[in-house]
Amino acid sequence: MKIAILGGDGFVGWPTTLHLSEQGHDVHIIDNLSRRWIDTELGVQSLTPMDSIQERCRIWHDLTGRRLHFHLLDLARDYERIKAWLIQHRPDAVIHFAEQRAAPYSMKSDRHKVYTVDNNVSATHNLLAALVESGIDAHVVHLGTMGVYGYSSVGATIPEGYLDVDITRPDGEKIPQQILYPTRPGSVYHMTKSLDQILFQFYAQNDGLRITDLHQGIVWGTHTDQTRRHPQLINRFDYDGDYGTVLNRFLIQAAIDYPLTVHGTGGQTRAFIHIQDSVRCIELALAAPPQAGSRVEIFNQMTETHRVRDLADLVAKVTGARVTHLPNPRAEAAENDLVVDNSKFLALGLQPTTLAEGLLGEVVDVARKFAHRIDRSRVPAVSAWTRDLAAKVERDPEGRKLKSVS
Amino acid sequence: MKIAILGGDGFVGWPTTLHLSEQGHDVHIIDNLSRRWIDTELGVQSLTPMDSIQERCRIWHDLTGRRLHFHLLDLARDYERIKAWLIQHRPDAVIHFAEQRAAPYSMKSDRHKVYTVDNNVSATHNLLAALVESGIDAHVVHLGTMGVYGYSSVGATIPEGYLDVDITRPDGEKIPQQILYPTRPGSVYHMTKSLDQILFQFYAQNDGLRITDLHQGIVWGTHTDQTRRHPQLINRFDYDGDYGTVLNRFLIQAAIDYPLTVHGTGGQTRAFIHIQDSVRCIELALAAPPQAGSRVEIFNQMTETHRVRDLADLVAKVTGARVTHLPNPRAEAAENDLVVDNSKFLALGLQPTTLAEGLLGEVVDVARKFAHRIDRSRVPAVSAWTRDLAAKVERDPEGRKLKSVS
Ligand SMILES: NC(=O)c1ccc[n+]([C@@H]2O[C@H](COP(=O)([O-])OP(=O)(O)OC[C@H]3O[C@@H](n4cnc5c(N)ncnc54)[C@H](O)[C@@H]3O)[C@@H](O)[C@H]2O)c1
Ligand SMILES: NC(=O)c1ccc[n+]([C@@H]2O[C@H](COP(=O)([O-])OP(=O)(O)OC[C@H]3O[C@@H](n4cnc5c(N)ncnc54)[C@H](O)[C@@H]3O)[C@@H](O)[C@H]2O)c1
Repeated sequence: MKIAILGGDGFVGWPTTLHLSEQGHDVHIIDNLSRRWIDTELGVQSLTPMDSIQERCRIWHDLTGRRLHFHLLDLARDYERIKAWLIQHRPDAVIHFAEQRAAPYSMKSDRHKVYTVDNNVSATHNLLAALVESGIDAHVVHLGTMGVYGYSSVGATIPEGYLDVDITRPDGEKIPQQILYPTRPGSVYHMTKSLDQILFQFYAQNDGLRITDLHQGIVWGTHTDQTRRHPQLINRFDYDGDYGTVLNRFLIQAAIDYPLTVHGTGGQTRAFIHIQDSVRCIELALAAPPQAGSRVEIFNQMTETHRVRDLADLVAKVTGARVTHLPNPRAEAAENDLVVDNSKFLALGLQPTTLAEGLLGEVVDVARKFAHRIDRSRVPAVSAWTRDLAAKVERDPEGRKLKSVS
Repeated sequence: MKIAILGGDGFVGWPTTLHLSEQGHDVHIIDNLSRRWIDTELGVQSLTPMDSIQERCRIWHDLTGRRLHFHLLDLARDYERIKAWLIQHRPDAVIHFAEQRAAPYSMKSDRHKVYTVDNNVSATHNLLAALVESGIDAHVVHLGTMGVYGYSSVGATIPEGYLDVDITRPDGEKIPQQILYPTRPGSVYHMTKSLDQILFQFYAQNDGLRITDLHQGIVWGTHTDQTRRHPQLINRFDYDGDYGTVLNRFLIQAAIDYPLTVHGTGGQTRAFIHIQDSVRCIELALAAPPQAGSRVEIFNQMTETHRVRDLADLVAKVTGARVTHLPNPRAEAAENDLVVDNSKFLALGLQPTTLAEGLLGEVVDVARKFAHRIDRSRVPAVSAWTRDLAAKVERDPEGRKLKSVS
């Protein structure tokens, strides 16, 4: 297949690129490199030294003889160029990672909120409108997030996308319907994924686009079978308070003897998936496209759930780190249960990589190896969700006043 | 109150401006005049001769001694200027009409789809982000549409915004919840109103913004008590295939002896409201703001429902016009029932103006008076919803090939 990977320079996009290239697909990366620019804006860098995308593609070619094609394109701003690109290249599938994906970054300031909404909504809508206009029947695989549902304390089982409801006719008759599972996003970033769902529903229904939406848990780990094969193929590893995801951040904190920072009680339960399983799920989803005219196919792309404080305790046990509690900058329930249905990927053959399997140790090794590259001042989380919360979260666990980088 | 009316130069915004000014409020119009530019793009004009907004404001002042303030501002593009405007003027309420509001226009071409999404999402989000950032606790009253629900053949009663559902816990316990009534928008325009709902839900929940969303039916009529008071205060009257709404279009067609064009079987049921009731509802909603921290207040702003073919028959009976059926350019159910709950406005004192009350005749009089301004070639609807439908709708009822203006 000819596959376009939008956002193929990112944390999940890059290992997906290598995985699909290795399987013999003709892979094209489209990326505006905005994530690298945000590193510059924030004054942070990937823990792992990351080469340019052009250099990484060259190394892969040297190693395997396979070509990766990189196209510098802004999906949110270059509508006409995306359309021209699609018409010229006619991909069989498009994997869409190309969004601003950090919740804390999206809440940093009004500028960051506006950027996140503009970038993410336009990227997704431009892609869909261009596919309709060019008449290209590519399977769209989008990365959404489990976080779109919010985490209330109700503790329902999150189904794979749809909820059965009864709607009532004027004569009192109840008509069973399946609707998109209602979302209650907790940040501007998560909200954009909720907006994406509406865009997908419309374009599947009105134009018969074939769309798969993967509601992904928090990705942890860094290596996959392909990124391990050469030092310069290494994946990016974010540890800062904006882009670093919770488990990876604990592992980094442990590696540099920083206390593991748990926000609030740590009673928030979250869904997780290892990066190796993430790329495998994408492969499975690609092989099972929905039919034209059918509704959006939704998978829950996660393998396990954990309470944040339990994760911290686990990492503390493995590494000897200590745990500290900080005020929670997010407007969210202090404690929640979370049960997620992921039977569709299991049925397609996914064999989950779980936390207990020693991969935790691998991440700590990566963290220790590159510990000299860590800027400790970037480890705390600094974006507060509301004005009231902002007043409470001004100091890091070492007692220093936090600098805002907005 | 100091009230900002975003989109105050438009069809509903202008009579709302006059109505609220007459009641003694300090009214500020914010508009980028994009609707006038779209008239130019399409080569159409309001049936009624419409003066510049500055001139209309001057006439109102001459007549009543009341000042209207006009600010040329693009809500979608000038984020920093909106914020500065809010901080300078500190309105008590903001009424938000400022969106591209024609479904056919939104489906004209990919350019029109992209424009509609960018304009409407950014206008709404910029307003919300700027209110949070500036700390201004203004009541936001937004005009949404009944059309956001789609019109399936299921025929449920549309409640005022929320639906009772049961969600299921892993132990099987069912937890009753109220969720936003699920939307199934049928055009890119309607889709943007569905996106707006998610934005409102988030900002009400995260930041305590006080938001009222009015899900409005199709507005008909042209005059209100204030616009009648001077020829130069007359409201705009759209009759073209993009912006003209169905009942007003029938009345125009009747006035110029053009056949009443019913798409498909005309079995689509729609909700309606007269322009005078529309401005009255906005007044009522303004007086009943939700409390900070509560969910978005949603009203169904309509007074009656009719099947499109019944409306055509009614207009034919009153005027002697003939009815003709054309292929439907929209991807929608051929027949649907529609029952809408509007008890909240009735409880607040709304006394509906219904179709039977002679106002139909007033609209026909307006249409006849300005019939010399009608461009017959602009009367048919030309935007098709999908490529397949586009092939079917190429000729107008007089047999002429339709020119596309995209
Ligand atoms: N990392 C996680 O834990 C996680 C969890 C759930 C869902 N997801 C989703 O998976 C996707 C990928 O996540 P990631 O961690 O790889 O993010 P990332 O930020 O590392 O990668 C995103 C890539 O998209 C590019 N991009 C952004 N906007 C673009 C635009 N307008 N035009 C072109 N390219 C653009 C960026 O430059 C970057 O290379 C995202 O959509 C994210 O929401 C990630
Ligand atoms: N007319 C109807 O039948 C009807 C029915 C249901 C809902 N509504 C809703 O009511 C609202 C008003 O409808 P209308 O018929 O008066 O529409 P309209 O097009 O006549 O007025 C909209 C006004 O908003 C302005 N505007 C658009 N984008 C803007 C931007 N980015 N910045 C500043 N100004 C901008 C336009 O110039 C125009 O003056 C719309 O939101 C519409 O969706 C209308």
